[in-house]
Amino acid sequence: MIKAVVFDAYGTLYDVDSVVQKCEEFFPKKGAEISKIWRQKQLEYSWLSALMDEYKDFWILTGNALCYALEALELEYNEDIIRKILRVYLNLKHYPEVIEALEAFRPCKLAILSNGTSEMLGELATNTCLDKHLDEILSVDPLKTYKPNPEVYKLAVEKLGVNKEEILFVSSNGWDVSGAKSFGFIVGWVNRVNKPMEKLGFKPDYIVSNLKELVEKTMKCKE
Amino acid sequence: MIKAVVFDAYGTLYDVDSVVQKCEEFFPKKGAEISKIWRQKQLEYSWLSALMDEYKDFWILTGNALCYALEALELEYNEDIIRKILRVYLNLKHYPEVIEALEAFRPCKLAILSNGTSEMLGELATNTCLDKHLDEILSVDPLKTYKPNPEVYKLAVEKLGVNKEEILFVSSNGWDVSGAKSFGFIVGWVNRVNKPMEKLGFKPDYIVSNLKELVEKTMKCKE
Repeated sequence: MIKAVVFDAYGTLYDVDSVVQKCEEFFPKKGAEISKIWRQKQLEYSWLSALMDEYKDFWILTGNALCYALEALELEYNEDIIRKILRVYLNLKHYPEVIEALEAFRPCKLAILSNGTSEMLGELATNTCLDKHLDEILSVDPLKTYKPNPEVYKLAVEKLGVNKEEILFVSSNGWDVSGAKSFGFIVGWVNRVNKPMEKLGFKPDYIVSNLKELVEKTMKCKE
Repeated sequence: MIKAVVFDAYGTLYDVDSVVQKCEEFFPKKGAEISKIWRQKQLEYSWLSALMDEYKDFWILTGNALCYALEALELEYNEDIIRKILRVYLNLKHYPEVIEALEAFRPCKLAILSNGTSEMLGELATNTCLDKHLDEILSVDPLKTYKPNPEVYKLAVEKLGVNKEEILFVSSNGWDVSGAKSFGFIVGWVNRVNKPMEKLGFKPDYIVSNLKELVEKTMKCKE
């Protein structure tokens, strides 16, 4: 039934809180707070710029969100600091179970579908050695819009040549789960931090707390 | 130059934190926290459902956001509690300077342009006696999308019969300010709580801390 597994990158394969340590270097004891506001604004800016039809790529948008976070906390910064912190996005840590899970899903085609630019995602996958486990790394960038615009999910169907009913889409982000389910994928929600389900009218097919658990639930179905 | 003034409702004319007191009745000492998460989710759900092309009206969406907020805080609720708290949205308090400001803007056409449904906005304006100061109350509902989709701002131009360059759009919400400026309005940002400017690429023409100050800045220009 499942012929391809498509993963969200940020928050799902990669821990966006990896930025905390670098933030602490410049702003001691403020890392966690910066990371929280930064991530929230990064998401907001993706949704808003897509809805305004004023696309800016995810590298620019992530930098802008970082500036907002620092200003919200009344921290002084300059371009050099922004550039240095931002570079962590090219070296985020993947979650511990990721490699093992990708290997277990291997009978299927494996891909990333992410808001990041091709450059960001390519460099990140290479730096973390995930590239050799993946068949495709798909970026929203050529579409000039962001998730959860259904056009983004459609890109996976087109590029992988697999029907949407045969694609397991995996995300830790509740809103991404809702968007993917609304589009018509089989959806697995990796609810790593025990959040309530988003009330957008669409429920995932699988709810797990990590990718290993998702392998167990979905690969068992295949036997 | 300014022929019409178009106001956002929630957060701009009306204080969405008016809900705190009612929340406290059911969940003592949790009102402020509930209000904060509720408002954030309400906005997120509007952006996400518009981007997913899965419109649900603002009454439903506001109720869903309240349920999310209560679950996030691990508070138990039932439909009756949701209904009772939600009704506060029909009786939000307007900010103290609103009536005086509307009167001062009176040489112009005056309107609300809001994500709320026509029913929500109509009842709220009547209950708070703002209806008699306004020429139009415009809801996104017939468009089945939400701000900052440019289609929403276009509605004001069409319904008021005034060019966008002659409309002063007023909002306390930084993202709404960005959307309105991207569309082409003259824009006033009522930055009531001293937030940083959103980094979406568009700056307001006026930045003030309340509506009275906006009257002083814009009506002086008219003389």
